[in-house]
Amino acid sequence: MYNIAILGASGYTGAELIRLIAGHSSMQIKALGGNSKAGQKMGDVFPHLRHLDLPDLVTADEINFAEIDLCFCALPHKTSQEVISKLPADLKIVDLSADFRLRDPEEYEKWYGNPHAALEQQKEAVYGLTEFYREEIKAARLVAGTGCNAATGQFALRPLIEADLIDLDDIILDLKCAVSGAGRALKENLLHAELSEGYHAYAVGGTHRHLGEFDQEFSVLAGRPVKVQFTPHLIPANRGILATVYVKGDPQAIHAAFEKAYSSEPFIEVVPFGQTPSTRHIRGSNFCHIGVSGDRIEGRAIVTAALDNLTKGSSGQALQNANLMLGIEETEGLMMAPLFP
Amino acid sequence: MYNIAILGASGYTGAELIRLIAGHSSMQIKALGGNSKAGQKMGDVFPHLRHLDLPDLVTADEINFAEIDLCFCALPHKTSQEVISKLPADLKIVDLSADFRLRDPEEYEKWYGNPHAALEQQKEAVYGLTEFYREEIKAARLVAGTGCNAATGQFALRPLIEADLIDLDDIILDLKCAVSGAGRALKENLLHAELSEGYHAYAVGGTHRHLGEFDQEFSVLAGRPVKVQFTPHLIPANRGILATVYVKGDPQAIHAAFEKAYSSEPFIEVVPFGQTPSTRHIRGSNFCHIGVSGDRIEGRAIVTAALDNLTKGSSGQALQNANLMLGIEETEGLMMAPLFP
Amino acid sequence: MYNIAILGASGYTGAELIRLIAGHSSMQIKALGGNSKAGQKMGDVFPHLRHLDLPDLVTADEINFAEIDLCFCALPHKTSQEVISKLPADLKIVDLSADFRLRDPEEYEKWYGNPHAALEQQKEAVYGLTEFYREEIKAARLVAGTGCNAATGQFALRPLIEADLIDLDDIILDLKCAVSGAGRALKENLLHAELSEGYHAYAVGGTHRHLGEFDQEFSVLAGRPVKVQFTPHLIPANRGILATVYVKGDPQAIHAAFEKAYSSEPFIEVVPFGQTPSTRHIRGSNFCHIGVSGDRIEGRAIVTAALDNLTKGSSGQALQNANLMLGIEETEGLMMAPLFP
Amino acid sequence: MYNIAILGASGYTGAELIRLIAGHSSMQIKALGGNSKAGQKMGDVFPHLRHLDLPDLVTADEINFAEIDLCFCALPHKTSQEVISKLPADLKIVDLSADFRLRDPEEYEKWYGNPHAALEQQKEAVYGLTEFYREEIKAARLVAGTGCNAATGQFALRPLIEADLIDLDDIILDLKCAVSGAGRALKENLLHAELSEGYHAYAVGGTHRHLGEFDQEFSVLAGRPVKVQFTPHLIPANRGILATVYVKGDPQAIHAAFEKAYSSEPFIEVVPFGQTPSTRHIRGSNFCHIGVSGDRIEGRAIVTAALDNLTKGSSGQALQNANLMLGIEETEGLMMAPLFP
Repeated sequence: MYNIAILGASGYTGAELIRLIAGHSSMQIKALGGNSKAGQKMGDVFPHLRHLDLPDLVTADEINFAEIDLCFCALPHKTSQEVISKLPADLKIVDLSADFRLRDPEEYEKWYGNPHAALEQQKEAVYGLTEFYREEIKAARLVAGTGCNAATGQFALRPLIEADLIDLDDIILDLKCAVSGAGRALKENLLHAELSEGYHAYAVGGTHRHLGEFDQEFSVLAGRPVKVQFTPHLIPANRGILATVYVKGDPQAIHAAFEKAYSSEPFIEVVPFGQTPSTRHIRGSNFCHIGVSGDRIEGRAIVTAALDNLTKGSSGQALQNANLMLGIEETEGLMMAPLFP
Repeated sequence: MYNIAILGASGYTGAELIRLIAGHSSMQIKALGGNSKAGQKMGDVFPHLRHLDLPDLVTADEINFAEIDLCFCALPHKTSQEVISKLPADLKIVDLSADFRLRDPEEYEKWYGNPHAALEQQKEAVYGLTEFYREEIKAARLVAGTGCNAATGQFALRPLIEADLIDLDDIILDLKCAVSGAGRALKENLLHAELSEGYHAYAVGGTHRHLGEFDQEFSVLAGRPVKVQFTPHLIPANRGILATVYVKGDPQAIHAAFEKAYSSEPFIEVVPFGQTPSTRHIRGSNFCHIGVSGDRIEGRAIVTAALDNLTKGSSGQALQNANLMLGIEETEGLMMAPLFP
Repeated sequence: MYNIAILGASGYTGAELIRLIAGHSSMQIKALGGNSKAGQKMGDVFPHLRHLDLPDLVTADEINFAEIDLCFCALPHKTSQEVISKLPADLKIVDLSADFRLRDPEEYEKWYGNPHAALEQQKEAVYGLTEFYREEIKAARLVAGTGCNAATGQFALRPLIEADLIDLDDIILDLKCAVSGAGRALKENLLHAELSEGYHAYAVGGTHRHLGEFDQEFSVLAGRPVKVQFTPHLIPANRGILATVYVKGDPQAIHAAFEKAYSSEPFIEVVPFGQTPSTRHIRGSNFCHIGVSGDRIEGRAIVTAALDNLTKGSSGQALQNANLMLGIEETEGLMMAPLFP
Repeated sequence: MYNIAILGASGYTGAELIRLIAGHSSMQIKALGGNSKAGQKMGDVFPHLRHLDLPDLVTADEINFAEIDLCFCALPHKTSQEVISKLPADLKIVDLSADFRLRDPEEYEKWYGNPHAALEQQKEAVYGLTEFYREEIKAARLVAGTGCNAATGQFALRPLIEADLIDLDDIILDLKCAVSGAGRALKENLLHAELSEGYHAYAVGGTHRHLGEFDQEFSVLAGRPVKVQFTPHLIPANRGILATVYVKGDPQAIHAAFEKAYSSEPFIEVVPFGQTPSTRHIRGSNFCHIGVSGDRIEGRAIVTAALDNLTKGSSGQALQNANLMLGIEETEGLMMAPLFP
């Protein structure tokens, strides 16, 4: 049994990690960090976990990391780098924040507004999009989880860019995001009375921070700068991201490229040509469903991709990476079917 | 007082017409047609209308159209043309179905799959997008209400096409539609257990019938064929359409064009540059909110437009047209504020 | 035209007052108070009101009450009494808070935890349950709006207590309340991700403050102390209160008592015996629907009552009272049909 | 590995069984019956199950029951008895319908309106409320799953009746039920546009069929006839039942009785005195949370119980029983944590 610590256990991604690890055959939760709620029982913070025998929340300082085999950091951006810079240098870490996703410190500062405070750790961090960085992740000490929007967009585009199937200068990602991606923050627009029964675009025009990840990854893949258009929308639902991606290329070739790229992937399902996935069919699971349709205008294709932002987009992906880092079967603890209805 | 009949009063657009006319100062409802529920009281079919003194539902045959000043047809597509072809030739009619929207009978047959059964009436029908066909509507006997998606897209694009501000070959409409647009039909995917908490694209790739309206209207405006890409998505909410429109053109010029085009329109609100409207802020009202943002990629703009599919997208628009046809103030019965939260 | 001021215009009941008054034929909004958002435009605080020509938000101090005919106070409890104690002594006021509902200052302190700070005003305050205090309200200077739960329960019980039809020692009110009743406060349990898709009881066991109103009113009616059991539940919806009231008495006699008591009430609809009202059929309106059913156990009846907490339960009731205080037709501005779906 | 068949696999409880069995270590699905959708792939009927390697749907006739170790019948009421009467007489069966819950055929006919068509099988059927019929279930061939409402009410009342702690003539069950309990039937009131954002009572006054189960079970327990009042309400959520039970008795003694009765139960969690469970904290799981509060009126208590109607209320309970019937660990495949948010 591997001993696991989770920092930031009082947020949604922390709770999701606990949900998943509770069904894992070779991990046990040894410590739960949550500074603002230190001293509380998890069953009080998250009553849906009350049946589990979990350690109480403590501050990060109170954790004896010598007995921890792997630590998940589900802390807010910026806090994460400060905390991780002080953790033991040989501790295996999966970070769920944005802090170690961008390899170029200047890009980090451009998108996040502050100089990076853990440059040393940043250098060794491996980008955590499992399906495309599997070998690096197996050997990594510190893995930086991909952003939930960035993961969805990359699943829908990487095989196409790699196979040179689309016009790189005309890529539009229209994303529909559920509200849990915004976390447990107390904001007026996240109240039920404000959010339910309506929807809107936000961070329009190329201002969303996950663009930093798209730029970095797609440009490496293409061997030249690639800039996509990306507009997220907030939808009245709790879990799920649906990406509708408009590209110029041959739809059938695109569908074939997905089938080839993902044929042996346990969590990526390519649906038959012309069908469209729904977020309701991946809810609570680690699966990502991808569909391709042609348009009546020749040479255009619509790619749709759906995943659960808290699972495949965050905590599930993190556990998948942790499995690889510890030499466990990659799918362990992650094969639960989606919850529908 | 003008005497009003509504055919198809047991559907959502019929009920919405009643809601609006109940607050209208110079219309009174004289007859309510609903073949499948003929004989029933409206308060039993729609308990939210039980406080109103309404006639019982009857079959269309039972209505004495000689005493009717204007008839709304809120019938299903195809049924509408059959019924209207048999109504008195001088009866003022506002049709909410798709049957008289396309001027070319071949286009109608292409999109709807059957030959048109009321070609004579089709010839005199006026397209009911009030803001752009005001004078024709005033003089019309038969007005064909614009489709809810088609209305949203046209509000977001007509001034730009007319002012020649955008690339006509690269227009993408990504629409997010609430479920009441699908009507009261008993379909598995419209059940609460199936629809809530998830969302997906449908009619992908240029197959949605409202494309016939876009093609017709934009090509006339541009003076040459225009084909847009249009992907609707079903969102877990009851009312609202949000269009996110991706165009190539100068964002500031586009915003200025909207402000100019809609400056004296009572129901179209152009929000400040960079802001984005939300469907929750127009719910239950006849307003349409339009926003424009630039992208980080120069020469690209994102237009967002929000309206209530049952009001401005259908029954509100129909009442606005009926006001014009009867010589009543255009805004009468339509100035109620949205319901929020 | 009467000049109206609203204090607390940046909350939900304030916004609802504006929505209603926007359609009122003889009121105009002259001043909007909102200390924390003073200086802002209403269209920025509530974009659904952006089409209206409204004064900007100001602090209460900035309002010239000499030109105000009636002032609505939609402030939080406790704040309201402090503000009202400093307003001109001849200003007509409709208060929506709990501050002036209880006639006995000791009862007030018992339920609200602090000594009352405006005892003088409290003495003259009239309880604002319009249907039962109509004459007093017409003559009042200061009217204290009934709590939304307290109003629902009283509509479902007053005629029964008055006609001595039920066992006074065995009354159970099980209420299902939508979330807007909790206001715009930033609390974790009001977030969409926490509230939607689940429901629970709160303030169980006789601790909810609206019990003070039930005790006061029912005891006066009965001529002896009456204590009811009252359990509110938070339901994932934005508007609506449904009371299920369990009483011991003859169901048919109870139904007849309601029909008699409410026969000439414009906003109270008694549905046929055995039918049950739904909150979805009164949403956004000032109506209250009441139903009565018998049980298989003889001598027991179930009364169900539905109203919109923001309208009939709060701002609609307030406007109804203001109409009476100003000598306007009681129903003016309040006859809009519910919004369904 | 035990070979499992599921009849009625195209409904919600069928799909839920597949979700659960997919994570079960010693069961494999050998056959899926679904007459109306025979010939279809499960991934087409329920896309959320598309990652699983499942047999296609067949008619019941096509299944070779000789190779089946246990058959779940998730068929509609009445159909179930007809089908089961024709299955091999030695086949282990867990029935999820209402057909074998009532031991007295006259009671069955009274509540369900038709004479029972499988009286022989009915005689041997064991009532499937696991926590109270464990030994009988272990030895049973045919187990009749408890109704979801009936299970919730019994968890909240059996220990109190057994310990003689409450007034048997004054028990009120006010239930709040999510929509999936109504199944996948195409009914107007189950449409998203009709159901969401509103709630109402139904089957008021002692007409709900689950009363047959309450009567049967409580009367046996008490040794004399017991009739409860039971009012279900339809809530806009997909999963969950919340029972609010009003009883006369000593609250602390009641809480103690629950703690004692359920101390070793793996799926029943008694929360601390005065706390109230929420359906959102048991969603998608096999847990039932129970709380007790006192009232301000002495000698009255409020019991609240929450479970997921599709899991603990139906398919999870069925799997729990199947585990016992096959000699497998009772909790196998059922310990997944709830999905929150």
